[in-house]
Amino acid sequence: MSKTRRFIGTPTDRPATPNFERTPLMPAIAQDAVSGEVLMLAWVDQEAWKASMETGFAHYHSRSRNALWKKGESSGHVQEIVETRVDCDEDAILYIVNQTGAACHTGERTCFYREGQAPQ
Amino acid sequence: MSKTRRFIGTPTDRPATPNFERTPLMPAIAQDAVSGEVLMLAWVDQEAWKASMETGFAHYHSRSRNALWKKGESSGHVQEIVETRVDCDEDAILYIVNQTGAACHTGERTCFYREGQAPQ
Repeated sequence: MSKTRRFIGTPTDRPATPNFERTPLMPAIAQDAVSGEVLMLAWVDQEAWKASMETGFAHYHSRSRNALWKKGESSGHVQEIVETRVDCDEDAILYIVNQTGAACHTGERTCFYREGQAPQ
Repeated sequence: MSKTRRFIGTPTDRPATPNFERTPLMPAIAQDAVSGEVLMLAWVDQEAWKASMETGFAHYHSRSRNALWKKGESSGHVQEIVETRVDCDEDAILYIVNQTGAACHTGERTCFYREGQAPQ
C-alpha cells in the first residue's frame, strides 16, 4: 500500500471486514488516489469484495447483469486498488484507486460530471 | 458556490436532477470540501434533496427512523453544502461540504476510519 495522501486520511482503528451477512449488496465509492476526485458509485457483494482483495483491482457486482464485474474488463479502464476503507456500520466501502482512463461509461473522467439541480 | 478545488473537478455538462421517480432512495456521498476526504455515505430521497437545496445544509433520509434527517441536527455536526454533483445515471449524489465537527456518529472525523480487510 502506498503512502497516505491528505484526502485519504489515516485509519484510526483496526481493519474491518464489510458485513455482507447483514448487507449482501452494499454501495462502494471509488476515489481517485491521485486527484482525490470521487469517480463513481457502484455495488459490491461478498464475491466482488473477495475478488478485489485477491487481485488488487476493483470488482463490483453488476445489478443489471447480476454478475461479478471487474471494472474495465472490456474497456481497459481498470482501477488498481491503492487502499480500501470500510465505514462505521460496515455497510459501505471506499476503494481508493489508480484509475486507468475514464471511470465513467460516458467517457467522462468521473461519473459525477454534472452539478446537482434543485427540483423544478 | 465557492471556487472549484482540484479534487472536486469541474462540471462538464449542464446540471442534472436526481431521478427519484426511478430510484426513490439513492446513495449520497459526503466529501470534505477542504481535505477531499470521503466523510460518509447515507441515503437521500426527494424530500431530503429538496431540503438540502433549499437550506444549503445536507439532509438525508434516515432509513432506521424512516424520516427526514438534517445531518447534525442534534449533534451540531452540520454539513454546509459547497457544491453538489449527480452521477451519470442520476441515481447517486455527491455532496461536497464544509463539515462542522465529526461526520461520524462514533466521533471520528470520517465514517471511513478503518482499512478494509480481506475475508478470513
